[in-house]
Amino acid sequence: MSFRASVLTLYPEMFPGALGLSLAGRALAEGTWSLETVQIRDFATDRHRTVDDTPAGGGAGMVMRADIVAKAIDHAAPADDARPKLLMSPRGRPLTQARVRALAAGPGVVIVCGRFEGIDQRVIEARQLEEVSIGDYILSGGEPAALVLLDAAVRLLPGVMGNEASGTEESFENGLLEHPHYTRPQEFEGRTIPDVLTSGNHARIAAWRRAEAERLTAERRPDLLQSQPVTK
Amino acid sequence: MSFRASVLTLYPEMFPGALGLSLAGRALAEGTWSLETVQIRDFATDRHRTVDDTPAGGGAGMVMRADIVAKAIDHAAPADDARPKLLMSPRGRPLTQARVRALAAGPGVVIVCGRFEGIDQRVIEARQLEEVSIGDYILSGGEPAALVLLDAAVRLLPGVMGNEASGTEESFENGLLEHPHYTRPQEFEGRTIPDVLTSGNHARIAAWRRAEAERLTAERRPDLLQSQPVTK
Repeated sequence: MSFRASVLTLYPEMFPGALGLSLAGRALAEGTWSLETVQIRDFATDRHRTVDDTPAGGGAGMVMRADIVAKAIDHAAPADDARPKLLMSPRGRPLTQARVRALAAGPGVVIVCGRFEGIDQRVIEARQLEEVSIGDYILSGGEPAALVLLDAAVRLLPGVMGNEASGTEESFENGLLEHPHYTRPQEFEGRTIPDVLTSGNHARIAAWRRAEAERLTAERRPDLLQSQPVTK
Repeated sequence: MSFRASVLTLYPEMFPGALGLSLAGRALAEGTWSLETVQIRDFATDRHRTVDDTPAGGGAGMVMRADIVAKAIDHAAPADDARPKLLMSPRGRPLTQARVRALAAGPGVVIVCGRFEGIDQRVIEARQLEEVSIGDYILSGGEPAALVLLDAAVRLLPGVMGNEASGTEESFENGLLEHPHYTRPQEFEGRTIPDVLTSGNHARIAAWRRAEAERLTAERRPDLLQSQPVTK
């Protein structure tokens, strides 16, 4: 059974976008995963197809209505749909490689993309949406975040990656950033490949890579050294 | 002078993608920002247009060559180009809203999108690429990350956001997650809007929102309460 993604959005034309090309696009064409978009606006009930309203309590911006978003969710995912229902949101728990791996091992995802100031809290609670943040910055909407989450998940589906990227996913799973990479030419603008890498001594190469990974992580991401892996 | 983005990639057809629609797309059409893609493969020198080679020291995957990536960078950004040169990479410093704001206030960005295992360390050093990570997960390449960074920056350009999203960018700048939102209808599946929000008492509403933001942040992101804002 293939991985099924349903994306609820006001901009279905943003999909598949980058996911229609390269590894993800090939896997989509081959049926390794499927992508359905649901236009939330189709569930509006007035003739202007309104999906939002002013925030209760006042303030700038507009809020997406609970009733309309709920109808779109129920359409995409009937009550017996086992897929996790995600809401891309800067208020969510930070996405981790461990969570991506768990999602990729499951039946698929239903992703709600918010726009405007956000969506009514009651539909988040009533439909038990899992709020997921891809990072501590603000996007124009959930769509670019959904593209990122799906890209990360799809590359882990069986058969999607060739040898091309085989080892990369270890990066965060061993809790360290990856060591630097080098390839030919031997000299570039006076800079040479570190001798150890051309020594042919596999134990020394492995030790150098480990030391470089530890050095980089301590320098750039001391938080990774302190924290336990978050498994959601 | 408008914000200029140059994206170096093996998949130029992934752009503008989602950035060609909605707020960013309108701003692109109006000339508030510009987007140029550079096909890295055009700078290959052999007849197979090879851009990568096996990693020095062995191991899985392929590494993008320093000399070819350098030529693409020099083409997109001559020595007097004031734009920061970024490399989207999980090894980079985590992107923050403060960094996005600083980038949006500048002349633009040159973004290198890596593929395969990564790019040769020597071009990162020789061209002083700033490695930027959008989060602790692994993507198929730098392209989805570049789309995210540009989406975040473009919405902050003068004139791009309407009132529609005006307040949102404060979310991380006051160090708290945003409070929950509500809008009509007054009742949804038996769930009502919290009384305080319909009380008309602006001081109580502000206090409730602040308390909710603090509660959510403590629950989901205690790290934000501990750390000082990173301004890079």
